[in-house]
Amino acid sequence: MNTLTVGLQERTAALEELYRDLHEHPELSFQEERTAGVVAARIAAAGCEVTTGVGRTGVVGVLRNGTGPTVLLRADMDALPVREIEKVPYRSRVTATDPDGATVPVMHACGHDTHVTALVGAVEQLAAQRDAWSGTVLAVFQPAEEIGAGARAMLDDGFLERFPPFDVALGQHISSAPSGHLYVRPGVFMAAADSLRVTVFGRGGHGSSPQNTVDPIVIAAAIVLRLQTIVAREVAPTDVAVVSVGAIHAGNKENVIPATAELKLNIRTFDAGVRERVLGAVRRIVAAEAAAAGAPREPEIAPINDFPLLVNDPGAADRVRAAFAEEFGAAQVHEAARKPGSEDFGCFADAAGVPSVFWNFGGFDPALYPDGPAQAYLAVAAGHAPGNHSPEFVPTGTGPTLHRATAALLTAAAAWLAPRA
Amino acid sequence: MNTLTVGLQERTAALEELYRDLHEHPELSFQEERTAGVVAARIAAAGCEVTTGVGRTGVVGVLRNGTGPTVLLRADMDALPVREIEKVPYRSRVTATDPDGATVPVMHACGHDTHVTALVGAVEQLAAQRDAWSGTVLAVFQPAEEIGAGARAMLDDGFLERFPPFDVALGQHISSAPSGHLYVRPGVFMAAADSLRVTVFGRGGHGSSPQNTVDPIVIAAAIVLRLQTIVAREVAPTDVAVVSVGAIHAGNKENVIPATAELKLNIRTFDAGVRERVLGAVRRIVAAEAAAAGAPREPEIAPINDFPLLVNDPGAADRVRAAFAEEFGAAQVHEAARKPGSEDFGCFADAAGVPSVFWNFGGFDPALYPDGPAQAYLAVAAGHAPGNHSPEFVPTGTGPTLHRATAALLTAAAAWLAPRA
Amino acid sequence: MNTLTVGLQERTAALEELYRDLHEHPELSFQEERTAGVVAARIAAAGCEVTTGVGRTGVVGVLRNGTGPTVLLRADMDALPVREIEKVPYRSRVTATDPDGATVPVMHACGHDTHVTALVGAVEQLAAQRDAWSGTVLAVFQPAEEIGAGARAMLDDGFLERFPPFDVALGQHISSAPSGHLYVRPGVFMAAADSLRVTVFGRGGHGSSPQNTVDPIVIAAAIVLRLQTIVAREVAPTDVAVVSVGAIHAGNKENVIPATAELKLNIRTFDAGVRERVLGAVRRIVAAEAAAAGAPREPEIAPINDFPLLVNDPGAADRVRAAFAEEFGAAQVHEAARKPGSEDFGCFADAAGVPSVFWNFGGFDPALYPDGPAQAYLAVAAGHAPGNHSPEFVPTGTGPTLHRATAALLTAAAAWLAPRA
Amino acid sequence: MNTLTVGLQERTAALEELYRDLHEHPELSFQEERTAGVVAARIAAAGCEVTTGVGRTGVVGVLRNGTGPTVLLRADMDALPVREIEKVPYRSRVTATDPDGATVPVMHACGHDTHVTALVGAVEQLAAQRDAWSGTVLAVFQPAEEIGAGARAMLDDGFLERFPPFDVALGQHISSAPSGHLYVRPGVFMAAADSLRVTVFGRGGHGSSPQNTVDPIVIAAAIVLRLQTIVAREVAPTDVAVVSVGAIHAGNKENVIPATAELKLNIRTFDAGVRERVLGAVRRIVAAEAAAAGAPREPEIAPINDFPLLVNDPGAADRVRAAFAEEFGAAQVHEAARKPGSEDFGCFADAAGVPSVFWNFGGFDPALYPDGPAQAYLAVAAGHAPGNHSPEFVPTGTGPTLHRATAALLTAAAAWLAPRA
Repeated sequence: MNTLTVGLQERTAALEELYRDLHEHPELSFQEERTAGVVAARIAAAGCEVTTGVGRTGVVGVLRNGTGPTVLLRADMDALPVREIEKVPYRSRVTATDPDGATVPVMHACGHDTHVTALVGAVEQLAAQRDAWSGTVLAVFQPAEEIGAGARAMLDDGFLERFPPFDVALGQHISSAPSGHLYVRPGVFMAAADSLRVTVFGRGGHGSSPQNTVDPIVIAAAIVLRLQTIVAREVAPTDVAVVSVGAIHAGNKENVIPATAELKLNIRTFDAGVRERVLGAVRRIVAAEAAAAGAPREPEIAPINDFPLLVNDPGAADRVRAAFAEEFGAAQVHEAARKPGSEDFGCFADAAGVPSVFWNFGGFDPALYPDGPAQAYLAVAAGHAPGNHSPEFVPTGTGPTLHRATAALLTAAAAWLAPRA
Repeated sequence: MNTLTVGLQERTAALEELYRDLHEHPELSFQEERTAGVVAARIAAAGCEVTTGVGRTGVVGVLRNGTGPTVLLRADMDALPVREIEKVPYRSRVTATDPDGATVPVMHACGHDTHVTALVGAVEQLAAQRDAWSGTVLAVFQPAEEIGAGARAMLDDGFLERFPPFDVALGQHISSAPSGHLYVRPGVFMAAADSLRVTVFGRGGHGSSPQNTVDPIVIAAAIVLRLQTIVAREVAPTDVAVVSVGAIHAGNKENVIPATAELKLNIRTFDAGVRERVLGAVRRIVAAEAAAAGAPREPEIAPINDFPLLVNDPGAADRVRAAFAEEFGAAQVHEAARKPGSEDFGCFADAAGVPSVFWNFGGFDPALYPDGPAQAYLAVAAGHAPGNHSPEFVPTGTGPTLHRATAALLTAAAAWLAPRA
Repeated sequence: MNTLTVGLQERTAALEELYRDLHEHPELSFQEERTAGVVAARIAAAGCEVTTGVGRTGVVGVLRNGTGPTVLLRADMDALPVREIEKVPYRSRVTATDPDGATVPVMHACGHDTHVTALVGAVEQLAAQRDAWSGTVLAVFQPAEEIGAGARAMLDDGFLERFPPFDVALGQHISSAPSGHLYVRPGVFMAAADSLRVTVFGRGGHGSSPQNTVDPIVIAAAIVLRLQTIVAREVAPTDVAVVSVGAIHAGNKENVIPATAELKLNIRTFDAGVRERVLGAVRRIVAAEAAAAGAPREPEIAPINDFPLLVNDPGAADRVRAAFAEEFGAAQVHEAARKPGSEDFGCFADAAGVPSVFWNFGGFDPALYPDGPAQAYLAVAAGHAPGNHSPEFVPTGTGPTLHRATAALLTAAAAWLAPRA
Repeated sequence: MNTLTVGLQERTAALEELYRDLHEHPELSFQEERTAGVVAARIAAAGCEVTTGVGRTGVVGVLRNGTGPTVLLRADMDALPVREIEKVPYRSRVTATDPDGATVPVMHACGHDTHVTALVGAVEQLAAQRDAWSGTVLAVFQPAEEIGAGARAMLDDGFLERFPPFDVALGQHISSAPSGHLYVRPGVFMAAADSLRVTVFGRGGHGSSPQNTVDPIVIAAAIVLRLQTIVAREVAPTDVAVVSVGAIHAGNKENVIPATAELKLNIRTFDAGVRERVLGAVRRIVAAEAAAAGAPREPEIAPINDFPLLVNDPGAADRVRAAFAEEFGAAQVHEAARKPGSEDFGCFADAAGVPSVFWNFGGFDPALYPDGPAQAYLAVAAGHAPGNHSPEFVPTGTGPTLHRATAALLTAAAAWLAPRA
């Protein structure tokens, strides 16, 4: 057994407490003030040199421990505008003001609270086990992953210049899979993503006189339905693409036909050619469906954010996988499937020109996954288990989940850090 | 010339000032506190017995002037959640909290500010011309017409018991037509309206994993498009019906598929059988489009509000029309078309069992109506003139408009009030 | 009782036999060879001067009977490409080749067989009752009413020059209403109609490779749904318009995406402005929905046929109505509603500059109409009674129906023809 | 160089002539009478024992040549109901009666004419080169591949009992790729396919009275659009599925709303679970969209045909690939991508329990493929090259194409047949 994980079990109750506190106090992208404060205090107490406000709300801890490689460990901190269902006593009742000025509920519906907790735990454990390793650990608590902006904000804020150069970047994400199981994949792992805001212009008027209006809600509905044809008709069946409309908003009153409607789109692809075709089809459909209604003005399409492809370095991924298999047993380690989700974790290693590895860990009761850990997605599909971003995405068995996530960070880090003689 | 209107011209500048103040300070339904205050002060000063808070924010003024008939004159006070375009210096910059807790812009996009101003002007003129008539005038400033609730609220608050019985109810509405012109119609004038809130239930999740969700935005879009078939396929071409979706709201974030979507519908009909068929078709379509997606739960359909048919008493309507023609010249008085808009004005007379007449007056520059006053709607259809509820519905030529609207109330009232010998 | 109808009852069995023969042998527009032959033989036997081949397959009979007015009586002869359901022993099993070369079933689904029978019966009765009237009767058996081409074809073939000038044109149509009842209306009675053929161009290919095609079936489906918004959103609720897609055809094989799709549209309006707006919206939607798919070529829109408005002369309509009421009792005669169906009957009188009247007669068991004869359409709406063009439109109680239809022609004609002294 | 291909070049002109004759005389599935006759005569002349009428119109030739393995070589013979564009002088002008009784154009739009030609050529070459090999060749000319019925029909007709047992089955298909290039893949190669006929039941009536009908064309259009959501929303982005509507038919006349509409669907999947989910979604959507319209009867869904997955034996595929590379050079041999098309070729080997290999050969001018032979599909996507089933799918450079296809059959066969000492 990896000596870095020795004694980790005794830390788990305290980590669970931290996790529940974070879960109850989620914060939107670039609003992670409270989370950053909690994190900074904990890792400073553990002996890190701490810098806050990196890329607006990011926190960086440097734990120096003699000569040897430098390993970057990264956790993302932000939550989502989702209303949590009532399932656990520490559920979120938080609301916040989103960038559009709307009051929205907030929930850790993507489980970044477990990422933060595990990285705090790993830092504390590394500090407690200084005798067992040598080198430097860069603990990166990143803001605003959900909008694909946090990693770039930290890099734009001088990250590479202000902190020690690193040899590898490691990160992880909770997924809807059984607690204790880990999923690694060499090569392309997660999709490129493009988010767009579409504003449709009609002509407002009284709900009883549609003939004097151009109804933007009908245009928006026609766009939503016609966008379905992109994946169904324009992308080769063996290529991968997703076009989701995540938000639609128009009108305040039932008897007033509004003048505009707004859609928010999210597009996922694994290939540059497919991405171009899909983006072109979105533009074509949006313009034509407005023209079909005789809209007085062509819709506006503006970018909200974008994510690059996430690619794991094959050699580094194999090293992580082997370390996991040795530490946790091969039955708990699986080849991850390519995922249409997106991540900006890769930006750090890309900017530095070093390898990086990103993996998933399970966070739910194994009984939810009757088809086994490798087919976890079947359980989500069948509605047996919640998926990321669902209002039900509240990990169960948080003790074992957090313990394994922390141990995974330590085990992967140990594959690079020099052992003490 | 009707002696009641003598000297009205000198009052017009003051009425315009009142109008601009009201226009700049619009208030949502049942929030007409400031408007009620302004009105109460003005008509009290004119000599009315004033009661406020009738049906929450309504105001009733009683102007007694000896024996004779009692005439009810009614103006509605509320505005709409519409963002006014920048066209006049006294435009609204007001926002308010709507019943759903959302912050919305507010605008007098239906012109109730002109109704209030004209009725204040008529009361002041009647008070100034006490020598010219005899009887009683009930000036009713009603809240919450836009949601079909204000007239009922006043009646539920004891209106018939608390105020003098009346012989006729008279009311008017500004329309997109040339200033100075008046429109009267015997019989069925405006539609029955039913507003419904439809909540669609899907299953939320990550925007990159649609297969684990039931996308409520796709269901909502399919409902919007399929609702178009009701008027196009299920209502006889010679019957009249309108089905408008005035609002659609779902989701906060582009990469999260939300769990629910909400639609607000408004339905207009002139016939009970047609109304039943349309409402049945709405229910059928909403349920089936959710079933098409395999929704985990049938949508909920809840009433928001409803309006009865507005029917003018034929004899009383003829009396008003004749009075208008005599006072203003036949070229300025037109047979109104049946309108798919709705009104709760009729509730007062219906409850009292007396006749009522409702008419329209024009509020815009005649140059906007090249096809003549009788085809005013063609100008709206062609986009030359704004229609009610449009963010551009700001009357022009407010002096002549307000003068004629005030004179119309006085002229119609004079057709009932006993002239002084 | 009108002396022209004396003895008509004894003729009814023979007319029923004629009717059943015609019903069993329906013919498409401009293919009415057999029908024309049967008709020509019968009316020649009755003493008419008969001309066949007028406007391709039309038949004109002239029955001269001394001085006096000339009355044109018109029946249309063609049937429809509808497959008759099995309901009566004399049902049609006929197929024919339509103008596109397709083999189609044929059925008298619009009841023109009853029109032909009634006019043959009226001619035979007029011939038998020569003592009772004086003047001339022009019996016009018109082809191709269903495609709006037969009346024009007869006029283009010199109708006005070749046959005696007439003082009035009278015609009738069976409707879904109780046998024995008649429906007349002064003024605008039936709609203008425009039929269009829309050809959508995509790019064909293998059903498994949609990304290499432009799927014309998806375009056609999007057009069909979006066309619903014209009546629902672009026509004023109080105006009348119908946009129906009567045929859609694309593809032969399930795994081949075809290169084209074809739609046949039918549009009904009562007003020139509404007609222009609807036709413009059809063109706009068809072009835009093809553009939404990136179609390689804009769709083609070609006219199939068109019908003018049908307007009854008010004075002549009143004369017919009064004659009916006197002959059949006022309880059997009703004010017809304006109908969105179309007719080319009006072309004869329009071309001659004389008045015309067109009326409806009921053709079904009164028990099917529980809401009474005036609301016959409610029974169709409720599915209790078949509507014109339905595969179930087979008149019941053919004896009474044919008797009344024949008597109606005679009674209306008698209102013009000079009685013998 | 493989001795079996010696002298093949001189045969090419004759094979081109055969090809053009077949191309000009395409026949629908199970109607391949003429093709079977031509084939039987040619291979009998070459020395085969020939059996015709196997599985209705199939032809089997047995060429015995001493001891050694038996190799099954298969070509499919049927064409498609596609109207060929005018591109080559030997284009098809043929029409035929399809199983529904409709007259349809026929075209070798899938290139089975090249398959037949190459197999005839291979048989003739094998007969001419008897000295170079030893064993038995089973030449199978299969009918009705396009409807997934021919292979099963031959097996049901006693194929395994009536002909020699075989050691391997080999087959090939032309694809839109440069002439001369070959594409092989071990494992899953082509999709399972399910074709369905959907009959929608509405209520027919007059085009001017939609309120008395249930419009099946609107239902069908709604189904077509909603089916797009299956691949776009219900199938995981990394899974493969295709849902195509290949045919839609309803109505004969523009002003008659028909009573029914018919759709033909084709579904492709590579996984049993995905297949079940897609079929379930089709059933759900079809039923719900009819319910949305208040259809009087639920749609009927009936199978048209189905294809199993096509899986290449990995060892046998490697053997074919190696033989190709040696014979034609590695630059001309590529790893085929998994294809969503379908094939019933696999049925022969599956029934016999022996390995099989199926490959693709290119059939078009290399200039059409600027991105290189491995990305041939890009050229189809870009519209530079036609895809299978397109009305433009007429191979160019037929000489080199047929030569390489024939040589490929011989080369693959030689990898099993015992060489003569």
